Amino acid sequence: MDFIKEFSENDKFANKIGIELLEVSKGHAKAKMKINEIHLNAVNTVHGGAIFTLADYTFAIAANTHGNIAVALNVTISFLKAVSSGTLFAEADEVSINPKIATYNIRVLNENNELISTFQGMAYRKEKLLK
Amino acid sequence: MDFIKEFSENDKFANKIGIELLEVSKGHAKAKMKINEIHLNAVNTVHGGAIFTLADYTFAIAANTHGNIAVALNVTISFLKAVSSGTLFAEADEVSINPKIATYNIRVLNENNELISTFQGMAYRKEKLLK
Amino acid sequence: MDFIKEFSENDKFANKIGIELLEVSKGHAKAKMKINEIHLNAVNTVHGGAIFTLADYTFAIAANTHGNIAVALNVTISFLKAVSSGTLFAEADEVSINPKIATYNIRVLNENNELISTFQGMAYRKEKLLK
Amino acid sequence: MDFIKEFSENDKFANKIGIELLEVSKGHAKAKMKINEIHLNAVNTVHGGAIFTLADYTFAIAANTHGNIAVALNVTISFLKAVSSGTLFAEADEVSINPKIATYNIRVLNENNELISTFQGMAYRKEKLLK
Repeated sequence: MDFIKEFSENDKFANKIGIELLEVSKGHAKAKMKINEIHLNAVNTVHGGAIFTLADYTFAIAANTHGNIAVALNVTISFLKAVSSGTLFAEADEVSINPKIATYNIRVLNENNELISTFQGMAYRKEKLLK
Repeated sequence: MDFIKEFSENDKFANKIGIELLEVSKGHAKAKMKINEIHLNAVNTVHGGAIFTLADYTFAIAANTHGNIAVALNVTISFLKAVSSGTLFAEADEVSINPKIATYNIRVLNENNELISTFQGMAYRKEKLLK
Repeated sequence: MDFIKEFSENDKFANKIGIELLEVSKGHAKAKMKINEIHLNAVNTVHGGAIFTLADYTFAIAANTHGNIAVALNVTISFLKAVSSGTLFAEADEVSINPKIATYNIRVLNENNELISTFQGMAYRKEKLLK
Repeated sequence: MDFIKEFSENDKFANKIGIELLEVSKGHAKAKMKINEIHLNAVNTVHGGAIFTLADYTFAIAANTHGNIAVALNVTISFLKAVSSGTLFAEADEVSINPKIATYNIRVLNENNELISTFQGMAYRKEKLLK
């Protein structure tokens, strides 16, 4: 999946905040983000926006593994546990797919395998191919 | 609302990605983010994570204006229109509040007043005060 | 909009639980449901499923006013206030629309104009026409 | 769990539309609903409100198994596949729980084990006990 490697390298925002791709296969992706001070919010826990971005990155990777450009329609994210240090891991799995719409569950865990956040995303699949 | 000014200055992640507070009052906040290359995703539109963070920042500000620490429980975000340049504005308004739970609607618009994203967030209000 | 009148009359589930259409125009619908004992849950407040159905009915009506068959992709509903008697009103308004996807906000209020529930729905618009 | 049996018997709306409890244990519940004409919408598929109610019923049962009254704060439901006949099954599993907030994933399947809908619910746990 060279086109996914390139897709990931072209994600400026994910790169800016330190997200690294760990695994990718059809409908699946896993990534990590080492927490540092730039990820923190006003109460010194990881910002919802940083957790969302990590999860959203794996959602985008997983949804684009089929070759068609897939764009996010909407997402629901739940914040289950606050975290301030360590490393976060997000893993995206495909729940359903049809020619136009696909849905993904993403789980965000810390390095102790505690569930930090759950994210469910729905994507619209364009006819246009990624490459 | 000096404690909100300080709250905003302490939001490392929001500052890192260039979010600026424009307005704040009880249950309300407005902010902007000038789009630049770091906000873009692999297909060169503004990353869902950047749009989410802008909206989430105004959600956090609005939810914390009452003085109690308020933390996000969950959020639903819809992405209505892709955007690649210009400035984004997010505005948060309180929909309901009780001693424990408060909900907010956030609208994200571009400089032409086109609706880019809608965000609805629910927060848990702690007894602990922000200051 | 005769086709919408027929659409509403054909909604067996909505009719079964006592929902009545009050208003309809392009992208908009309003309906009511008089609360009676069949709508109650185990703690004697109106069942989330009954509130959802009332809101979902106006979502479906509003989304189908354009003539194309529109089907729900997903919905987020927040329950803001419990209610046990009186009449509920739901009002759906179009937030955005493009050839494939449309989104709607629905507000559920009681007869004292108190906000009971907010509902945001996204629909997929088929090419097939309703009639 | 006699209090849960009673809780289920007191759910007037779920009983009205033909929902039957199949399994219950701490943080878990499973139920079924045989589809008949009253469950159908204007395009003769099972109404989103009927699917929601089935899922919401298992959510309420699972969330109340701990003894404290738990009330729904919000829910996101995705509709993945339309269905017109047969039997629907919903199964709720606890994702996270703390003294105030608990979250549940519910999957709705048909009798061929096809995924019809996914539902994620967040509940507020009151101090008051169910009995």
